[in-house]
Amino acid sequence: MSKPFSFDIHARQGSARAGLLHTPHGDLLTPVFAPVGTQATVKAATPAQLHELGASLVLSNTYHLYLRPGDELVAQMGGLHQFMQWPNPMLTDSGGFQVFSLSNSRKIDEDGVTFKSHIDGSSHRFTPEKSIAIQENLGADIIMAFDECAPPYDKAYNERAMARTHAWAERCLAAHQRPDQALFGIVQGGVFPDLRQQSAEFIASLGFPGHAIGGLSVGETKDEMHAMIEVVNAVLPEDKPRYLMGVGSPEDLVNGVLRGIDIFDCVLPTRLARHSAALTRTSRLNLVNAGYAADPAPIDETCTCYTCQHFSRAYLRHLITAKEMLAATLLTLHNLHTLLQLMRDLRQAILTGSLEPFADQFFANRQDTTP
Amino acid sequence: MSKPFSFDIHARQGSARAGLLHTPHGDLLTPVFAPVGTQATVKAATPAQLHELGASLVLSNTYHLYLRPGDELVAQMGGLHQFMQWPNPMLTDSGGFQVFSLSNSRKIDEDGVTFKSHIDGSSHRFTPEKSIAIQENLGADIIMAFDECAPPYDKAYNERAMARTHAWAERCLAAHQRPDQALFGIVQGGVFPDLRQQSAEFIASLGFPGHAIGGLSVGETKDEMHAMIEVVNAVLPEDKPRYLMGVGSPEDLVNGVLRGIDIFDCVLPTRLARHSAALTRTSRLNLVNAGYAADPAPIDETCTCYTCQHFSRAYLRHLITAKEMLAATLLTLHNLHTLLQLMRDLRQAILTGSLEPFADQFFANRQDTTP
Repeated sequence: MSKPFSFDIHARQGSARAGLLHTPHGDLLTPVFAPVGTQATVKAATPAQLHELGASLVLSNTYHLYLRPGDELVAQMGGLHQFMQWPNPMLTDSGGFQVFSLSNSRKIDEDGVTFKSHIDGSSHRFTPEKSIAIQENLGADIIMAFDECAPPYDKAYNERAMARTHAWAERCLAAHQRPDQALFGIVQGGVFPDLRQQSAEFIASLGFPGHAIGGLSVGETKDEMHAMIEVVNAVLPEDKPRYLMGVGSPEDLVNGVLRGIDIFDCVLPTRLARHSAALTRTSRLNLVNAGYAADPAPIDETCTCYTCQHFSRAYLRHLITAKEMLAATLLTLHNLHTLLQLMRDLRQAILTGSLEPFADQFFANRQDTTP
Repeated sequence: MSKPFSFDIHARQGSARAGLLHTPHGDLLTPVFAPVGTQATVKAATPAQLHELGASLVLSNTYHLYLRPGDELVAQMGGLHQFMQWPNPMLTDSGGFQVFSLSNSRKIDEDGVTFKSHIDGSSHRFTPEKSIAIQENLGADIIMAFDECAPPYDKAYNERAMARTHAWAERCLAAHQRPDQALFGIVQGGVFPDLRQQSAEFIASLGFPGHAIGGLSVGETKDEMHAMIEVVNAVLPEDKPRYLMGVGSPEDLVNGVLRGIDIFDCVLPTRLARHSAALTRTSRLNLVNAGYAADPAPIDETCTCYTCQHFSRAYLRHLITAKEMLAATLLTLHNLHTLLQLMRDLRQAILTGSLEPFADQFFANRQDTTP
């Protein structure tokens, strides 16, 4: 692991860790949740608002930025940090997940994937080398190996996809040049403990400065997700950061931290916000409901975010009903605050040795049956 | 004029004045431009962002808020200041302009107007008394008499509409109760100097604490607009604030201030922002143009707004092309800053006796032919 990305673990409780990951654009206190800025913007929020929320790491998507505005243009404009004016740490995915999601308009071979753009239907090809070249143009601090995310329950397919993911991981390592970026390897293997174990062992053997668990939160049960995290984290080296990709409900964050995850990202808080839903630690509110029409209370009486410190449910419902953009902004600020504050509190609980009672209380307060 | 709305004129130059209007929610430094928050939100901006821009007065629309969420609900939620969390001065229009704009679904009589909602087609009726009752429920600091805005070139129609506007002005004054609101009278009369003179004399005789000029920027020429402002302002009392309704391009603001206007409002800066256009003092940029795709410059090198201090034209064009909400927010912040800063500079020029050279320079720099 190169020096700019040294990872210090300040405290542990059970499998959980509170750490600090150095990056060229600042330090990340872990565990950390990364808001998603798919197209070089966290939808409905300015960088200044993200900064006020205490966001430290933002994720952007290689597939989307390659297609529009183009990674070469971003490089010409000084890189993604400069382009979107996020001066703090950034992470880009490899483009793999998005390309494989285009199930009817992509073709996989051992060398890479040919796919059609969702914007104009034009043909494109990603290989491990191409993904790394794009991510080098974008210039995020943490970049990801090009992998294949397979349907979770098809074992034969997962074996083939895992083999490709492993071969591609080696090619990504060979292709990657920039010393100011940390390239993370990705463990695959569906819901199969033996494949996950095998994948974690292989990926860990390659010497990446950090590791990710891919292919979860894609249709498997919560129990299966937890079991896979446990199998993989028992293998991945303790002293390197672990990133659970695409996971981010409050209960998933707590469950991930309890099992030794350091980094999370998810579109959930921002996507829910654009669909009128507010996330709290205990439940979700759909603010379009008529029951909120004359409700003077904030989303959450205990929340310290800008939205809850100022606006009533009645006002938020009015904005939603009137199709006003401010609804998405105010709910985005609230939902991101909910997750970012939860991560800060989880870190504090680990530092003070109180993670177990914190988690017990968290699950006891949940108003749904999701563990 | 009741004490809470006393108007002090600090300096004059020609017809222009720099003043201070006291309101129950704070002092307005005039001349002032009011961003429009039609549905209890200035589209795409938070109140915190408006505050940072130095906005002091926000306008909201009686017609829209009566229909949704309903003025009684707003009253129950503590009034419009509390509901939309704008703690500073607010102004509501009378609903007249919007209702008369529904040309195919409204019917005017001497007592009021019956109209169909643009939301669900339901039938409603506004009278002068109803407009005042709604505006008392909303609770803005400055409220407007219910008037009829006629097509500018039909003299016979303008005579009838003016007569109705005058009768309705007296009924509004009789109906209005709240001492913490200033009710402004509105001068009509199309493009006809004799009607404008007659209307200004009548409205001025009623003792309103402030006066507005309605029915301009509705299809007449700029020369006609300027002539009407001059006719009316020669009649309206010097010691009360004058509000030019619905006017707000940079050149219209300068021309209005030169002719003695104190208050302006317009949807232009926020509407242009949602249609990819940036306002500067000298021109308009349509940022969707491919010529900006790789342009690293801000909208305006000399601008001190958040958008220009951080973001390139290339990034703004990317957001527009990718249909990202942040485009509307960043352009809204820039366009509002352009007008708010212009008003601050105009005020300063009046205070320092340099309005004439300021205006000369302003018009010399314009990149279009609009005077």
